Amino acid sequence: MTQEVPSDDFHVFDTTLRDGAQREGINLSVADKLTIARHLDEFGVGYIEGGWPGANPRDTEFFQRAQAEIDFRAARLVAFGATRKAGVRAGDDQQVVALAEAGAPVVTIVAKSHDRHVDLALRTTQEENLRMVRDTVEYLRGRGCRVFVDCEHFFDGYRANPAYALDVARAAHESGAEVVVLCDTNGGMLPSHVDGIVRSVLAETGARLGIHAQDDSGCAVANTLAAVDAGATHVQCTANGYGERVGNANLFPVVAALQLKHGRRVVPDAALAEMTRTSHAIAEVVNLTPSTHQPYVGTSAFAHKAGLHASAIKVDPDLYQHIDPELVGNSMRMLVSDMAGRALVELKGKELGYDLTSDRDLVGRVVDRVKEQELRGFSYEAADASFELLLRDEVRRGAPRFFRLESWRVIVEDRPDGTHANEAIVRLWAKGERVVATGEGNGPVNALDRALRHGLERIYPELARLELVDYKVRILEGRHGTESTTRVLISTSDGTSEWGTVGVADNVIAASWQALDDAYTYGLLRAGELPQE
Amino acid sequence: MTQEVPSDDFHVFDTTLRDGAQREGINLSVADKLTIARHLDEFGVGYIEGGWPGANPRDTEFFQRAQAEIDFRAARLVAFGATRKAGVRAGDDQQVVALAEAGAPVVTIVAKSHDRHVDLALRTTQEENLRMVRDTVEYLRGRGCRVFVDCEHFFDGYRANPAYALDVARAAHESGAEVVVLCDTNGGMLPSHVDGIVRSVLAETGARLGIHAQDDSGCAVANTLAAVDAGATHVQCTANGYGERVGNANLFPVVAALQLKHGRRVVPDAALAEMTRTSHAIAEVVNLTPSTHQPYVGTSAFAHKAGLHASAIKVDPDLYQHIDPELVGNSMRMLVSDMAGRALVELKGKELGYDLTSDRDLVGRVVDRVKEQELRGFSYEAADASFELLLRDEVRRGAPRFFRLESWRVIVEDRPDGTHANEAIVRLWAKGERVVATGEGNGPVNALDRALRHGLERIYPELARLELVDYKVRILEGRHGTESTTRVLISTSDGTSEWGTVGVADNVIAASWQALDDAYTYGLLRAGELPQE
Repeated sequence: MTQEVPSDDFHVFDTTLRDGAQREGINLSVADKLTIARHLDEFGVGYIEGGWPGANPRDTEFFQRAQAEIDFRAARLVAFGATRKAGVRAGDDQQVVALAEAGAPVVTIVAKSHDRHVDLALRTTQEENLRMVRDTVEYLRGRGCRVFVDCEHFFDGYRANPAYALDVARAAHESGAEVVVLCDTNGGMLPSHVDGIVRSVLAETGARLGIHAQDDSGCAVANTLAAVDAGATHVQCTANGYGERVGNANLFPVVAALQLKHGRRVVPDAALAEMTRTSHAIAEVVNLTPSTHQPYVGTSAFAHKAGLHASAIKVDPDLYQHIDPELVGNSMRMLVSDMAGRALVELKGKELGYDLTSDRDLVGRVVDRVKEQELRGFSYEAADASFELLLRDEVRRGAPRFFRLESWRVIVEDRPDGTHANEAIVRLWAKGERVVATGEGNGPVNALDRALRHGLERIYPELARLELVDYKVRILEGRHGTESTTRVLISTSDGTSEWGTVGVADNVIAASWQALDDAYTYGLLRAGELPQE
Repeated sequence: MTQEVPSDDFHVFDTTLRDGAQREGINLSVADKLTIARHLDEFGVGYIEGGWPGANPRDTEFFQRAQAEIDFRAARLVAFGATRKAGVRAGDDQQVVALAEAGAPVVTIVAKSHDRHVDLALRTTQEENLRMVRDTVEYLRGRGCRVFVDCEHFFDGYRANPAYALDVARAAHESGAEVVVLCDTNGGMLPSHVDGIVRSVLAETGARLGIHAQDDSGCAVANTLAAVDAGATHVQCTANGYGERVGNANLFPVVAALQLKHGRRVVPDAALAEMTRTSHAIAEVVNLTPSTHQPYVGTSAFAHKAGLHASAIKVDPDLYQHIDPELVGNSMRMLVSDMAGRALVELKGKELGYDLTSDRDLVGRVVDRVKEQELRGFSYEAADASFELLLRDEVRRGAPRFFRLESWRVIVEDRPDGTHANEAIVRLWAKGERVVATGEGNGPVNALDRALRHGLERIYPELARLELVDYKVRILEGRHGTESTTRVLISTSDGTSEWGTVGVADNVIAASWQALDDAYTYGLLRAGELPQE
């Protein structure tokens, strides 16, 4: 990727590491934060807000290590903190001093701009709050920092007391803050509110304005774009919209809309074309399943299952997509589901290399099998390999088989010392041989996987290259507690590509067995082995 | 709830059962559709689009049964279909006739309004397409139906060829369609586009306009509100935003914004106050986990974990929420997480009935335990009961115990006939007695649960009232396949309330055991049993 540094005329300001980390379920280590900072820098954001140095040891360590270990291409590191306490000099407030000493070139300070918050939460006077803003900005500027000011609850404050909210914005601007960020902290605004208030503040203060939108009304992306339309030139976002409560404005649809629909170039095109990967990589670091329905980058974002659409897509894919998915590193997918018409199965077959157009009976049989299996709880949407095995079974009137199961047994035991034993035994036939193998693991499915590999690796040495890279369990019909049906999805890799398989049973281990069986069968097919029966 | 029927001056038009069902992973039976229709009617939507009668047997059956079995309070049932085929009379097109004969009082027909789609997908002339719209509307009106027309790809069509898009809108309006619905079928529009186009079409045609927005740009809610601001009086939405690809405009934030922020009364207030329950009930029917981060109705929508916020919330909760969550049937929650400051643990303790303000050491110990446990993978955010047991352990310097485990063992076996045996044995001590009990189940955790109950029910008969109502498995560190750590969350009910417990282990069964142990311990505490040790 070329060293394209975004223009400073427009700021894409990421706060995943600070505000995003407030999301329920996120808990970032220093190593996680460093990895995410690298992804964000590669994506091309202009600013990365890394946390609150001094507030906790993790954030302090992050700032030290980020500056020592990361060779930023484009992004500037930002330290976040608050205005000085009431009644002390900025230089005597340890919190403010720590911001200057974090070594980040930019500091964002949060300032109260809603009169009621000054009274009730800050418990000081409106005048002292204005002095706190001015003193803190001037002190940090004096220490060589660029300063942005987050005006917390600005929109609510402006609607309650516009004169005071404007006083705070002016105090920040006049004391040298480069950007006055208007924050919809509680997320209650709609785009029409944002539009009017941003225009007024711009006219009244002449300050460079930023927008920080929370998604409580489901409008954070639109509010961010409304602020840009109204003249804001600094947008605060988080990767995948992570953030407190509902979340923050999602970086990815904001950047995509600005670049692909507003014609404003904010990240390198090559980085935009990696956006889907970036989104998923960050989801992996924070350990949240990527939202399949996220705009632009979700696995469903360009997926079609409607019969009507499938027929038209055969004519021209652009008829049914708002952008070319490759611009954001995503791709169109045809979904196999029980709404699948014949056109869809034909398209999917083609994707997998089977020409089905000439055999109407075959397509009908596949459609019927898929419907029947999905009624039982199977889902082929994330299990292409299991679908291909089903398709081959119908094409060749027989599923490919490399081994035949006789039986398996799994024992899990709690031991008096608090540890657990997991043992599995499998009995099967392969290439005419009866194989009995055992495996131990750190869980019952892992033990079963090891027993299967152990039994087969001598006969099929290429199995050694296969690795299970993801394992998902979904309990269906969730109101029945542990009596539910279980669906297991497994992703397997041979080092160059990945495939998904599915199993469904009333039992997590039996469902896992089915998915493992498909995973290894497909892996052996790919490796060029000939099926035995 | 009173029988308040919404005014027909503004339509809330739900299409969960038609367009919503296109979402990846949704597959509705007729019974599911009937249940969802009842929920939507109770919520107070004006129109329920039920599907395409005639297109498949399921939708045909739904229309018959919905009219026979549901006593709608407010909602009118809508049948969806397409304009007649090119070159035939509407009355000779079986698809159109089936719409008239479905017996629904309203029919929505989809019409092409983008010239390119007329050419490439419909393969007819622009003039014939206009005749198809007029004939179909007139035929259905003649059969006694009210008719709405969905102008598919209207916005893209208008941007490509405004004159032709307007011709289609006029053809619909002039032939008697009550509402001309402008559809952003590919979801590419931003609110600024929608605003301008809706205003132009309204000025040019004078027709009553509706909006159908898809969420591909992350702006479906905002686009819907922009259309209303521009003069549309009919909004098409789906429950929880279900729909093809990224989804449709989400009914719940649209209704909440209109009612709570625009001052437009579209559903009864009492129904709005049930919105969270309605959202979750529909998620349950479609068998998708409710999105925790959904605006207004997500379990995280009013959840706070930031230390700063927690301190201010002690002063006044309205400082940090955009609406009173009770207006939509949700509630504020304080999250216990390793970002938990002391203020948060004190608040949470208070919520659970413990006054911790006087004991700084105790609060410190709880904060430390929570941090340490969350590092190991525990999450107390959905496991209040496990948190309360931890808290009691620190308050009383010892966890409450009703039984002491000696050991357990689980065996899962694949039998030659394809069925599975699941057996568990538990050995434990309770009230001075050693108990050895076995259980069989349809899965290993179910077997373990039954063995535990079987062993304890004679000693603690109140266990018979407890039911496991939800069981969730989450694989942590997903890149390591089946070697990952497993977190299990269990919800248990005693018929009047529910509580959540958590277990974490390298093994799904051991993790389940921990969550079961906490679930029964907490249930026995609630039932008034005295701990044994």
